[in-house]
Amino acid sequence: MELLEQRILDEGIVLPGNVLKVDSFLNHQIDPKLSMAMGKELVRLFDGTKIDRVLTVEASGIAIGLTTAFVLGVPLVFARKKASVLMTEPVYMEKVYSYTKKESAEITVLQKFLPAGENVLLVDDFLANGEAALGMARIVEKAGSEVVGIGIAIEKSFQNGHKRILDAGYHLEALASVASLDDGKVTFVR
Amino acid sequence: MELLEQRILDEGIVLPGNVLKVDSFLNHQIDPKLSMAMGKELVRLFDGTKIDRVLTVEASGIAIGLTTAFVLGVPLVFARKKASVLMTEPVYMEKVYSYTKKESAEITVLQKFLPAGENVLLVDDFLANGEAALGMARIVEKAGSEVVGIGIAIEKSFQNGHKRILDAGYHLEALASVASLDDGKVTFVR
Repeated sequence: MELLEQRILDEGIVLPGNVLKVDSFLNHQIDPKLSMAMGKELVRLFDGTKIDRVLTVEASGIAIGLTTAFVLGVPLVFARKKASVLMTEPVYMEKVYSYTKKESAEITVLQKFLPAGENVLLVDDFLANGEAALGMARIVEKAGSEVVGIGIAIEKSFQNGHKRILDAGYHLEALASVASLDDGKVTFVR
Repeated sequence: MELLEQRILDEGIVLPGNVLKVDSFLNHQIDPKLSMAMGKELVRLFDGTKIDRVLTVEASGIAIGLTTAFVLGVPLVFARKKASVLMTEPVYMEKVYSYTKKESAEITVLQKFLPAGENVLLVDDFLANGEAALGMARIVEKAGSEVVGIGIAIEKSFQNGHKRILDAGYHLEALASVASLDDGKVTFVR
């Protein structure tokens, strides 16, 4: 998606450890118009797939999850990274590790918001090692539903999440695929 | 906002301690169409006010913050409840206490995403004791900008946030004002 790639080139900051900071438009300050355009483009990429529900993880996945679900006309559910004290009903919970934050989180969804027998699209802002996406996929499958796709704003295709997701047989679409962050420079997959 | 009030009556669950759970459409499962309608209605309520930016707090404020900012055509910034390891630049930070969770959080915003001299609208999903809203207001004022309004999806007007915000002189608008949760029944302000 050219609009997103251009924005990454203009505003993205590369930090040591293969970190790409895009907090000026994606995950701290948010450009709502770009969020809506990204939702529309994800829906276009999964055109022809029946989707009943979008699942993402708080907090950075909510914006693109919401616009995607809005365009599809289906509910969005966001997994909590920390179970709320108000979650007194049965939950699905999966441990996922963040290499950026160097900590594990237990992503949690109330069971009643993932009914069985649905087609679920997973959406997230970033794909690096695939921990969050694969954790969400395990939750959807525990719930008796099918993961019909994984839609990502920015994937770092040189890290292992891309391969793990394809090896597991999921349909993966990323709006921007970063091939390398070497020498502080963003190069996209062509 | 009748659409929201009806949804609260249909799906809201009242728990002991004046807790109103609306996680089937507002803050765990989200109805994107309702989120967009709420954003539009907040913009209508603040019609005539110049707004440069919307500020909210993760995670539950992001959906209504995004739709409000989308309708206004301005950026959204969401305060983090926990500073990210990637926040290596100067931040504004304010301690706020959650009576529901019985814990304090330090809401944090990178300074560069709150330029001075702007008109900022604060948006959140809930107003109870006003801690998050007043914390955001302190941050905006530290940044040298003006809080031109506080827009809330659901306020519990019988708790003290409503009065604290009006006493501080802010323009408050809530899409649904709950007068009481006595006997497990939701009553709205008329």
